[in-house]
Amino acid sequence: MLLKKTYSLPVGFFSILTYLCGMLTDEILRLKSYLCVGLDTDITRLPKHLPATPEGMLAFNQEIVAATADYAVSYKLNTAFYEAQGAEGWSVMQETLACIPPHKLTIADAKRGDIGNTVTQYARAFFERLSFDAITVAPYMGADSVMPFLQYKDKWVILLALTSNESAQDFQTLPIAGMPIAGRQELLYENVLQTSKEWATPAQMMYVVGATKAAHLQKIRAIVPEHFLLVPGVGAQGGSLEEVAQYGMNKNVGLLVNASRSILYAGAGKDFADKARLEAQKMQQAMQDTLEKYGF
Amino acid sequence: MLLKKTYSLPVGFFSILTYLCGMLTDEILRLKSYLCVGLDTDITRLPKHLPATPEGMLAFNQEIVAATADYAVSYKLNTAFYEAQGAEGWSVMQETLACIPPHKLTIADAKRGDIGNTVTQYARAFFERLSFDAITVAPYMGADSVMPFLQYKDKWVILLALTSNESAQDFQTLPIAGMPIAGRQELLYENVLQTSKEWATPAQMMYVVGATKAAHLQKIRAIVPEHFLLVPGVGAQGGSLEEVAQYGMNKNVGLLVNASRSILYAGAGKDFADKARLEAQKMQQAMQDTLEKYGF
Repeated sequence: MLLKKTYSLPVGFFSILTYLCGMLTDEILRLKSYLCVGLDTDITRLPKHLPATPEGMLAFNQEIVAATADYAVSYKLNTAFYEAQGAEGWSVMQETLACIPPHKLTIADAKRGDIGNTVTQYARAFFERLSFDAITVAPYMGADSVMPFLQYKDKWVILLALTSNESAQDFQTLPIAGMPIAGRQELLYENVLQTSKEWATPAQMMYVVGATKAAHLQKIRAIVPEHFLLVPGVGAQGGSLEEVAQYGMNKNVGLLVNASRSILYAGAGKDFADKARLEAQKMQQAMQDTLEKYGF
Repeated sequence: MLLKKTYSLPVGFFSILTYLCGMLTDEILRLKSYLCVGLDTDITRLPKHLPATPEGMLAFNQEIVAATADYAVSYKLNTAFYEAQGAEGWSVMQETLACIPPHKLTIADAKRGDIGNTVTQYARAFFERLSFDAITVAPYMGADSVMPFLQYKDKWVILLALTSNESAQDFQTLPIAGMPIAGRQELLYENVLQTSKEWATPAQMMYVVGATKAAHLQKIRAIVPEHFLLVPGVGAQGGSLEEVAQYGMNKNVGLLVNASRSILYAGAGKDFADKARLEAQKMQQAMQDTLEKYGF
């Protein structure tokens, strides 16, 4: 979990918000990186010298985390890859969390969403039992399906807005009738942003915005100028870091860019961790360039 | 899993579809029930004589299944309640599945949805490792987020269309611009039905339709007359079984009505299973009445 600063907080809700957002920004500026490493650890893609078992997954994760921690401010565990290994996979998720340095933001990429009494259980699973700092959540079921996560004031909800997959256009970009915005119909993902930003402050909510849709970032920033955006799709999925920085950065940086496969599988041999480190360093350097370009 | 009939299948895809749908309808007509029992087993609500542990959850589930199997054609495990117990909870899910009679339809109420390579992992988790017959899936990410589930031809995807919670109206009932239907704008959930019904046949896809929205059932049946509907919200959430039957039934019955809390927590003492059995029997009887009323 995010390390709490030890000095005493200024009194008042707004100050706490600024403080929470600020901690993440501080870490970004310290490392000159807004890299999130996605631990989408596929048991069938482990280097050959590691066993294709839950133990092998854990050993892989431990080496990846150790190799990239100088360059990443956040780690995102894609729950599907652990659930595919059943109860043992769930334990790997828990043990992986234990090896992530405490000042990194840990994200459960779980994309959950259900009725209130069910989401209360998911919140217990990911925020209490596993101690993640953040969880990704699907918006389709609306406010009451998200609220139980927001009861945890020191945790983050990361709501899906516009995803990086091709079929995002099936529903997310449908125009909503009678909701004009800048002389055109509002799109569904814009409506999701507009509606959901009332549910919580920018210190508790982020949005998933697929990097392969960088042209949409301007529209998104017009609606949520203050929020952090979690941007997947750079790397294996082909998004451009420069476009993301140009259109997505705000005064707190406001970006976490995720890379999974391009780092995890940079190498396939015994030196996979060294290769991963080099790839993470390369991304950090590119991020540092954009930070400097935009005055951080 | 659903028991396969032993006689040989007629050749041809359409026949297989009819066969799969038919097996579920056969079981419904055999029991004169379309009851799905939702195993939303809350560790804090177990009867006092059972320990509030994963072992207690399993013992509770085993008794509930044994007590209700004469009246239910399906069991739905809400994954959140198991994940809240970590790796041990995951094992309880597995062991609960093992005690469900093989001819019942088993549903993972997981509401997953992600990019293709991730959904492939979820499919492995729920269809291979856990051997569920069906999984609930969220539609927000579109076709390619659902397709990997549909690769399993003998399994079901149950897509969220209109959910039973109050905030379903935040997004699911938004009118879509330029999509007129019966002289009005199509709503988002109607668009989801219209689009997604092209992804698979009614032998592989069902829809979640909240019973608290029975008035919407007519609109839904106009779009998906052939599909099975999984209807939560009867019982603790207050939906009407008679309205659901009136507007939701089709020529294959086409309904699974879920009840969770009203059955699981019908009693709070040592006789909880007897109370659950009585509640399930009451629902079965009400369902039998509707089946007879509509000519089955």
